[in-house]
Amino acid sequence: MRETWHVNAAQDPVDENDRLHRLYGVGFEELQVPNPERRLFLSLERQVDLLELERLTTAVGWRPRPIRRVRRALCHSLLVVGVWCHDPLLPRLVGFARCIGDGVINATVWDVVIHPAYQGVGLGHGLMAFVVKQLQVMGVEQITLFADPGVIRFYQNQGWEVEPNNQRCCFWYAC
Amino acid sequence: MRETWHVNAAQDPVDENDRLHRLYGVGFEELQVPNPERRLFLSLERQVDLLELERLTTAVGWRPRPIRRVRRALCHSLLVVGVWCHDPLLPRLVGFARCIGDGVINATVWDVVIHPAYQGVGLGHGLMAFVVKQLQVMGVEQITLFADPGVIRFYQNQGWEVEPNNQRCCFWYAC
Ligand SMILES: CC(C)(COP(=O)(O)OP(=O)(O)OC[C@H]1O[C@@H](n2cnc3c(N)ncnc32)[C@H](O)[C@@H]1OP(=O)(O)O)[C@@H](O)C(=O)NCCC(=O)NCCS
Ligand SMILES: CC(C)(COP(=O)(O)OP(=O)(O)OC[C@H]1O[C@@H](n2cnc3c(N)ncnc32)[C@H](O)[C@@H]1OP(=O)(O)O)[C@@H](O)C(=O)NCCC(=O)NCCS
Repeated sequence: MRETWHVNAAQDPVDENDRLHRLYGVGFEELQVPNPERRLFLSLERQVDLLELERLTTAVGWRPRPIRRVRRALCHSLLVVGVWCHDPLLPRLVGFARCIGDGVINATVWDVVIHPAYQGVGLGHGLMAFVVKQLQVMGVEQITLFADPGVIRFYQNQGWEVEPNNQRCCFWYAC
Repeated sequence: MRETWHVNAAQDPVDENDRLHRLYGVGFEELQVPNPERRLFLSLERQVDLLELERLTTAVGWRPRPIRRVRRALCHSLLVVGVWCHDPLLPRLVGFARCIGDGVINATVWDVVIHPAYQGVGLGHGLMAFVVKQLQVMGVEQITLFADPGVIRFYQNQGWEVEPNNQRCCFWYAC
C-alpha cells in the first residue's frame, strides 16, 4: 500500500513540484544534462553545507578557508547559488557560485565551481546564465568577475567582455 | 563678548575635536596638504549629498546616473568615504570612494574620484590608504578594483598588484 502511494505520488506533477520546492526553495530551476538518469537543479535557497562546499572547492584545487569566515562571507553575499545533483532525500552539492555587490550598480561574481566529475556537460554555462539572469532581474547595471587564464574563453563564449576599455584588475591582499 | 568666546573655542583642542566629530562622525581623519590654509578631512559618516556627488563625478567626466539608483547603491555599499574640504558651517565634498563586498573575504573599490581642482597633492593616495585601512580593520582578505589605463600606475605606486596570476577582468553590462 505504501509502495503504491509512493509510485503514484512520483507520477503526479503537482506533488512532484511541491516536493522540489521543499528541497530547493523558491525560484529553483532544472538544468538539462545529457544523462537522462540524473536530474540537476539550481537553487538560491537550499542551505549550503559548509563542509560539503569545502569538499567541492578542494576537489578543484582551491585551498580551504576557515569555515567561520566562509559562513560570514556567504551571509553577506548578494546571491548564493548551489547546483544540486537531485536525490529526493539528500541532494548533493556539485556546483556553486556567489556574488557580492550593491544590487543596483555593481555586482561581482566569485567562487564559480563545478565538481570535476560533472564538468564539460554544460552545467557551468547553465550556472552562469542563471546568475546573470538573477542579477538582471534585480536591475544590476554592471556585473564583473576575475577569470583565471584557463577560463577566459569559457566566459567570453557566454558574452562576457574581457577588459573593455583596457581596464586592468588590481588586487590587494591582507597577508 | 561673543567674538571672544569664538576665538577661545577655536583654540581649545577639546572643543575643536568635538566640533569636528559633529561634522565628520566617528573615525574621521585629517589629510595633510601643502596649502596650510585648507583643511581636508576623510569621513565615513558624514552624509553625502547626492547632487553634490553628481557634480563631483561629472567634473571628472563620468556620465550622470539616476539619483534614485545611486542612493540605493550607496545604502548597500560596504563602505562609503567622503573627502571634505573643511568649512565649519558647510564642508564641501571634493573626493569620494565606495566599496562593495562581503566584509570578510572580498571587497571591491568603486568610484574613486578627487575633484580636478584638488588633484595632484596627495588626496587620492590618502583616500586609498584610508579605504584599505578600513577594510583591513574589518578583516577583509582580498581587495580588488578595476583601473582605467591612465591610473594603473597610481594604484601600483600604492602597492596594488596588477593582474596577479594573469587574471583578467570580465564585464557584463545590462544594456
Ligand atoms: C570553469 C568551470 C566552472 C566550467 O564548468 P563546466 O560545467 O565544465 O562548464 P560547461 O560544461 O558549461 O562548459 C565547459 C566546456 O564544455 C563544453 N560543453 C558544454 N556543454 C557540453 C556538452 N553537453 N557536451 C560536451 N561539451 C560541452 C562547452 O562548450 C565549454 O567549452 P568553452 O569553455 O569553450 O565554452 C569548471 O571547469 C570549474 O569548476 N573549474 C575549476 C574552477 C574554476 O576555474 N573556476 C573559475 C574561476 S574564475
Ligand atoms: C585618480 C585620482 C583619484 C588620483 O587622485 P589625486 O588626488 O590626484 O592623487 P594623488 O595626488 O594622491 O596622486 C597623483 C599623483 O600626484 C603625485 N603627488 C602626490 N602628492 C603630491 C604632492 N604633494 N605634490 C605633487 N604631486 C604629488 C603622486 O606622486 C601621484 O603620482 P602617481 O599617480 O604616479 O603615484 C584622480 O586623478 C581622479 O579623480 N581622476 C579621475 C577619476 C578616475 O580616473 N578615477 C579612478 C578610476 S579607476
